[in-house]
Amino acid sequence: MKVGERHYRTIWVADDGWTVEVIDQTKLPFEFEVLALKDLAAAADAIQRMVVRGAPLIGVTAAYGMALEMRRDASDGALSDAYNRLLATRPTAVNLRWALDDMWQVLHTTDVMDRVEKAYHRAAELADDDVDTCHNIGLNGASLIEAAAAKKQSGEAVNILTHCNAGWLATTDWGTALSPIYVAHDKGIPVHVWVDETRPRNQGASLTAWELQSHGVPHSVIADNVGGHLMQHGQVDLCITGTDRTTGSGDVCNKIGTYLKALAAHDNGVPFYVALPYSTIDWTIDDGVRDVPIEQRDPKEVTQMTGRTADGRIETVEIIPKGVSAVNYAFDVTPRHLVTKLITERGICEASRDDLERLYPEHAG
Amino acid sequence: MKVGERHYRTIWVADDGWTVEVIDQTKLPFEFEVLALKDLAAAADAIQRMVVRGAPLIGVTAAYGMALEMRRDASDGALSDAYNRLLATRPTAVNLRWALDDMWQVLHTTDVMDRVEKAYHRAAELADDDVDTCHNIGLNGASLIEAAAAKKQSGEAVNILTHCNAGWLATTDWGTALSPIYVAHDKGIPVHVWVDETRPRNQGASLTAWELQSHGVPHSVIADNVGGHLMQHGQVDLCITGTDRTTGSGDVCNKIGTYLKALAAHDNGVPFYVALPYSTIDWTIDDGVRDVPIEQRDPKEVTQMTGRTADGRIETVEIIPKGVSAVNYAFDVTPRHLVTKLITERGICEASRDDLERLYPEHAG
Repeated sequence: MKVGERHYRTIWVADDGWTVEVIDQTKLPFEFEVLALKDLAAAADAIQRMVVRGAPLIGVTAAYGMALEMRRDASDGALSDAYNRLLATRPTAVNLRWALDDMWQVLHTTDVMDRVEKAYHRAAELADDDVDTCHNIGLNGASLIEAAAAKKQSGEAVNILTHCNAGWLATTDWGTALSPIYVAHDKGIPVHVWVDETRPRNQGASLTAWELQSHGVPHSVIADNVGGHLMQHGQVDLCITGTDRTTGSGDVCNKIGTYLKALAAHDNGVPFYVALPYSTIDWTIDDGVRDVPIEQRDPKEVTQMTGRTADGRIETVEIIPKGVSAVNYAFDVTPRHLVTKLITERGICEASRDDLERLYPEHAG
Repeated sequence: MKVGERHYRTIWVADDGWTVEVIDQTKLPFEFEVLALKDLAAAADAIQRMVVRGAPLIGVTAAYGMALEMRRDASDGALSDAYNRLLATRPTAVNLRWALDDMWQVLHTTDVMDRVEKAYHRAAELADDDVDTCHNIGLNGASLIEAAAAKKQSGEAVNILTHCNAGWLATTDWGTALSPIYVAHDKGIPVHVWVDETRPRNQGASLTAWELQSHGVPHSVIADNVGGHLMQHGQVDLCITGTDRTTGSGDVCNKIGTYLKALAAHDNGVPFYVALPYSTIDWTIDDGVRDVPIEQRDPKEVTQMTGRTADGRIETVEIIPKGVSAVNYAFDVTPRHLVTKLITERGICEASRDDLERLYPEHAG
C-alpha cells in the first residue's frame, strides 16, 4: 500500500536483482526504514527480531532467505542447513514451515546449477500468491462495506472498528482485516476506522494507525475500553478483525480482547466480521475455547511502554508500581456464534464447519 | 488502609490540631508523599490539581478547606467567598456541592466566634461518615466474597476482577469496590484480585495495584483486553466495580470499559457486582445509556504515557505516530440487566428501581 505517494510491499527484491529489502517494523511507527538482507543470516535475524512479522510475511521472508543462501552455496547440504536455520527462528509459525517445505520441495528436485534462479522465482511466486490472496479477501470484504455505505446518507463515512494489526504490514501487501477497508477506500467509499490501541503491545495505536495514515484512510485511535460505548451509540457500522487461528468449526483465535468486542457487537446488533486467508484454518480443532492453547507472554509487555519523548528520544518507561506483578495472555477465542461472517479469499461464509467446507470442499468430511 | 505497617486515611488533621494533611495522589504510584494544606488556597489547589480525587474525598477536602478559611477569617464574607472558591474547583462534582452546602448550612447559623471549632468538627464528622459508609459497603459486599469462598477448596483464593480505582484513595478510607475486598482479606478469606490496567489513565495499574500492594492483598495487573478470556476459563469468581453515577433504575455509569467486562461476565455466568454509596444515585434518570452524558477528555490521555525510566526519572512519552488523532470517551453505561447486584451501605439489592426504593424508601415514588 501507499507510504506517502509511493507504493510499497513489505518485502521486495532490490534493483540489483538479488538483495532482498524489507521495511524494518521494529522501527515503526517512529521511523520508516528499509533494511537490506544480503544473506541467510540476515534473513533469519529479520524473522527472529521481528523486523518482519505476520504469518504470511514471515513465510515469504523465509523463502527469500533460502534464495539468498542458494546464491552463496546451492548444494544439498546448504539447502538442508538453510531450511533448519530458518525453521528455528519462530518454531510455532505455521506459515513458516509451510513456505520452507514448499521451497525445499521445489529446490531439492532442481539441478544445483538452476537453484538460484528457481529459488528467487519461487519466492516471488509465493509473495505474489500472498498478495493475490489478500487482495481477494479485500474484494470480497469490500462488498460488505459497500452494502453498509448504501444504507447511509451520501458522503457519510462507514464507521469500522478493528482490533490489533491485520494490515499489509503483516502480509506482503493489502493485509487481511484491513484489505477490505483499503479496497473500499480506493473505490471512493467514505470510511472511518476506529483503531483499537490493542494493549499490551499497542499494534493498533502504532502499526494500524501508521498504515492507515500512510495510505490516507481516515481513522481515530481509541483505548480498547471504548468500543462497547461506541456500539451502544450507533457509532460503529461494522467490525472487522483478523485471526491467528480459525477452527474448522469457525471459532476465531485472535489478539486478546477480540472476544470482548465481539460480545459488544452481538449485544448491539453490529455485524462482526473476521477476515482470513485459508492458511489460518485449523481443520483439526472444533471447540476453540476448550482446545486452542493460549500463549502467555512476558509481563514486561504490560508493565513497560515505549514511546517518543518531547525532545525526540525513544524511551521505555515502567508504568506500574515497583514490585507489582502482571499477567499477559496474548490471545483469546471468540466463539463462532458471535461471528457474523468469515471473509476469505474464496468468498464470504458463515462461521460454521458446513459453510467453511462448502468454500473449501477439499477439506470436507 | 495500610501503607506498609502504618494505617492511613487519605486526609487527616495534623498533630498541631489545624493543618490538614493529604496523600499527594499526583505522585502515586511512584512516590508516597504527604502534602500539608494550611489555607483555603492550598485546599482549592489540591482539589483542582487532583492531588485528591474521588467524589467522597473531594467533598471532605472541601469541608476542611472551609475550616482552614474560618481560621483565617470567620466572617460571613469569607464564608461565602470560600464556598464559591471551592465550588469552582471541580464544577461537575456532585459531592463537592453537597459537602459545601452542608458546611455552609452549619456555619452560617453558627456564631462567628464558634465557627472555627464548628467547621473542624463538622468536617471531621463528614470524614467519619464517609468512612462508615464505605466500611458498611465493605461489610455487606464481603458476604458475597465469603459465599464464593465457601464454594472453593479450603485455602484456594477467590478471584475477583475489578476495573479502574474505586479504592480507599478515592474516599476517606476503605473505598467502594475495594472495600469488600479489604474486609474479606482482613477476615482471613484468601482473595486474589485481577486488576484491569484501565486505559487510558491507568488508574488500575497505578492506583489500585499500589493500594492492594500497600495493604498486602494478592493481585495481578492485566491489560483491559484480558478479562473476557479469564472468565471463559473459570479464572474469575466475581467482578466488583465502582460507579460514578447510578440511575434510579440501576443502570451504572462507570469508567469506560466497565460495560465490556459486564458483557463478558454475563456471557460466562460470572456475578457482576457494583459497589456504591447512596450519594452516586441519580434518582431522576431512568435510561442510563440514553440519558447520561458521557464526557470526552483530552486525547493526550490516550496518546501519551507517563512512567519511570530505568534510571529512575519520571518521563512522558508519545506512543502513537505523529499526526494520528485519538478520541477519548471517559465513561460508559452498563445496563442494569448486566448487573447482578448493587452493594450499598444499607445492604445488597437488585439493580432495579423497585429494589433501590426498598433500600432507600425516602426516595420511593
